[in-house]
Amino acid sequence: MADVQNCDSCSSSPLELFERVTAQGEKVRSLKAGKASTDEIDAAVKLLLSLKVTYKTATGQDYKAGSPPVDFSPVSNNGPTTTQDEDFVDPWTVQTSNAKGVDYDKLIVRFGSSKIDKELINRIERVTGKTPHHFLRRGIFFSHRDMNQILDAYENKKPFYLYTGRGPSSEAMHVGHLIPFIFTKWLQEVFNVPLVIQLTDDEKYLWKDLTIEKAYEYAIENAKDIIACGFDINKTFIFSDLDYLGMSSGFYKNVVKVQKHVTFNQVKGIFGFTDSDCIGKISFPAIQAAPSFSSSFPQIFKDKKDIQCLIPCAIDQDPYFRMTRDVAPRIGYLKPALLHSIFFPALQGAQTKMSASDPNSSIFLTDTPKQIKTKINKHAFSGGKDTIEEHRKYGGNCEVDVSYMYLTFFLEDDDKLEKMKQAYTSGALLTGELKKVLIETLQPLVAAHQQRRKQITDEMVKQFMTPRKLAFNF
Amino acid sequence: MADVQNCDSCSSSPLELFERVTAQGEKVRSLKAGKASTDEIDAAVKLLLSLKVTYKTATGQDYKAGSPPVDFSPVSNNGPTTTQDEDFVDPWTVQTSNAKGVDYDKLIVRFGSSKIDKELINRIERVTGKTPHHFLRRGIFFSHRDMNQILDAYENKKPFYLYTGRGPSSEAMHVGHLIPFIFTKWLQEVFNVPLVIQLTDDEKYLWKDLTIEKAYEYAIENAKDIIACGFDINKTFIFSDLDYLGMSSGFYKNVVKVQKHVTFNQVKGIFGFTDSDCIGKISFPAIQAAPSFSSSFPQIFKDKKDIQCLIPCAIDQDPYFRMTRDVAPRIGYLKPALLHSIFFPALQGAQTKMSASDPNSSIFLTDTPKQIKTKINKHAFSGGKDTIEEHRKYGGNCEVDVSYMYLTFFLEDDDKLEKMKQAYTSGALLTGELKKVLIETLQPLVAAHQQRRKQITDEMVKQFMTPRKLAFNF
Repeated sequence: MADVQNCDSCSSSPLELFERVTAQGEKVRSLKAGKASTDEIDAAVKLLLSLKVTYKTATGQDYKAGSPPVDFSPVSNNGPTTTQDEDFVDPWTVQTSNAKGVDYDKLIVRFGSSKIDKELINRIERVTGKTPHHFLRRGIFFSHRDMNQILDAYENKKPFYLYTGRGPSSEAMHVGHLIPFIFTKWLQEVFNVPLVIQLTDDEKYLWKDLTIEKAYEYAIENAKDIIACGFDINKTFIFSDLDYLGMSSGFYKNVVKVQKHVTFNQVKGIFGFTDSDCIGKISFPAIQAAPSFSSSFPQIFKDKKDIQCLIPCAIDQDPYFRMTRDVAPRIGYLKPALLHSIFFPALQGAQTKMSASDPNSSIFLTDTPKQIKTKINKHAFSGGKDTIEEHRKYGGNCEVDVSYMYLTFFLEDDDKLEKMKQAYTSGALLTGELKKVLIETLQPLVAAHQQRRKQITDEMVKQFMTPRKLAFNF
Repeated sequence: MADVQNCDSCSSSPLELFERVTAQGEKVRSLKAGKASTDEIDAAVKLLLSLKVTYKTATGQDYKAGSPPVDFSPVSNNGPTTTQDEDFVDPWTVQTSNAKGVDYDKLIVRFGSSKIDKELINRIERVTGKTPHHFLRRGIFFSHRDMNQILDAYENKKPFYLYTGRGPSSEAMHVGHLIPFIFTKWLQEVFNVPLVIQLTDDEKYLWKDLTIEKAYEYAIENAKDIIACGFDINKTFIFSDLDYLGMSSGFYKNVVKVQKHVTFNQVKGIFGFTDSDCIGKISFPAIQAAPSFSSSFPQIFKDKKDIQCLIPCAIDQDPYFRMTRDVAPRIGYLKPALLHSIFFPALQGAQTKMSASDPNSSIFLTDTPKQIKTKINKHAFSGGKDTIEEHRKYGGNCEVDVSYMYLTFFLEDDDKLEKMKQAYTSGALLTGELKKVLIETLQPLVAAHQQRRKQITDEMVKQFMTPRKLAFNF
């Protein structure tokens, strides 16, 4: 804790002020316990009182031990700031009462990120000479941090690398889990850069009722599905935390560096941890932060500590990387850039939660063509009207129709998608017909994935997961 | 959190009860936030109130959010339980107002360990066929946990291993730092068992204003002093956390296992951490716990998870291992056994703190014969009288005399020590004469250490610190 007597506090953040008051309170207690002189105690108490006044002025709240200021960070969405009308988004929970799903424009404001606008998309096209992926064109990747910096670097022939990941909570992945990987693969091809993929089996062990062995087993199974997306083995390193932490000369050092620069107050504010949480959860954010720094992968980047990182991920992972970006300059590293995607809706509708334990909540990568057909026909929430007559007359609502939403993710043909939107909205296209298009889109996609996955051998998985130099010279 | 509705709570510990109340409080809040039905909320509130009553009955205290029950564990010595007459002992602070030093009998009661009594010392002699080390005979190692279990195992030809360590906070070690290593070396020789020595450079990086590189450098320098104590290279593995975490397939997995089973409330109670502490400190206790389990060293113990561990250490490290012993059975491991030493006093007296930054507070392993002589003559607190006449008449007080205390550590000859005690107590031996004996004991001891240390090559350090099989078959 820095010297509190200078006027640093004038420009401090509410959280910093909170921590100063707390630290000063502890100092007073320890002076009293250590039987310090009355003068010394008086001076310390006086300072404590003045810090409390400063705190109240800055936050409008009385200082309360153990309760950091609410709303001290735009990331926080816990506690009293979340009104019942607001969406709730953190790495474990996504909640909205709106059938259209989360209000992403509001989320951009709350998280303090930037919208991926037409201008940025055009720049990506100009810089790479490639048509932007339909995930960009359709706003599926909708938000970013510092993407222009990455493009500047790329234009100046300065290297960067990609980092994405997955928490292997079960063997079975669903089509929604593919989104970050499909997009990351496109980025890797377009920019021709190294890619690291983190499997947080340690996180799943900590959060779920799983053994270490089971969590690692899931990581390996998930790795197969990820490899089946078509990543280039010469440019991609996939790792399990439980494995790689014990194999890397750089990773743990970066974990400890991050851990030294984040307090419990901060993770409490960002992730909503409580005093009853295990210390593994409390320190885990540093494990997800570490791959954002190139020195965590000396086998790929040698001794280069300044290769910038670009992280494509769903927006619920942003809290981890806001924390990472806050810490980075303080430990001498570059802030990672980010590209955020919207959430993939459950079959039952955008406001319900998808659950790996409910096979009917999504299309799984292991589903048969028949299962895909049945699930979509039976469970995909429809924005159509109750009767054919009404539907013909008033038309369907694409904004809440899950089949239509899924098509925006998986139907690549822009024209066809636009035509269907118009036909469905006008009532010319019936729900059953729309569902048929989705079924015919997903059946071959899932079958092709299964085909590719079958060809992934244990040897290939091992290769992808072996720390090694990639096809880049640093 | 387990189901709170059954009568588990009747037999729960205060801390478990505290956590149940906390969890139930969170449940009520989330039900309210989630707009649950009134019935559901009412039921949850009712349970919360009844848990609070149970808590008060069990602890005599009102439940207060964020404040776990004081005294919930005999390890806790923070907060309001420490009166000004009581000694304070934790891994970072040792405080006593008594010139004789900490009251170790009280500490045994407070920590819940067992005294090393004559019977145990005799058993060690019987079982090993060796004269017990003078650290045992003179009560320097005075307390233990489960040492009889280790002796049972030894008698039944079941293997065990030794684990000790050091926090490398500076290059310079003083003679007091040698105590655990001198004793551990004796144990290794007498029992012929593997030994692992942890250098917690990560801890020092987290606690001090140090870079990672500096902390690692200190670890290597300290390793040389440790090796100079004469450990058998074929039976000893020395490791830096910053290094070994990234080289072991077993260590990190055990760290995560421990981290899953310890809450913030618990480390707060045990170590006095606060919400302003960094998450690195909060999760560090798991790093010091992990070497207590043989599966953290697969290169030594192969897949054996049930080799018991014996930890010789100063009593201030006990909080780490109380926590470890609490967790061990819950993750399927054996509890480590312990042998505790008293603290090594500062030259200025047993109630003052030794400090690596004050060169006059102890005899350093780098001191010249002249420095040793000057320091002892000038700074060693004397239990003698102010004038020769008074001293001859009333005699000196060995209980507070630091030169005498140091001799109990380093003068191996029992008869000579006893004679000096009598002569000093009677007044026949003057302070200057006593100091002369100490000077003549320490000068050759330190010189011999320096001689041995000079012969330690970087290659030897590397060998000691390379994960490898030792001269034992498991």
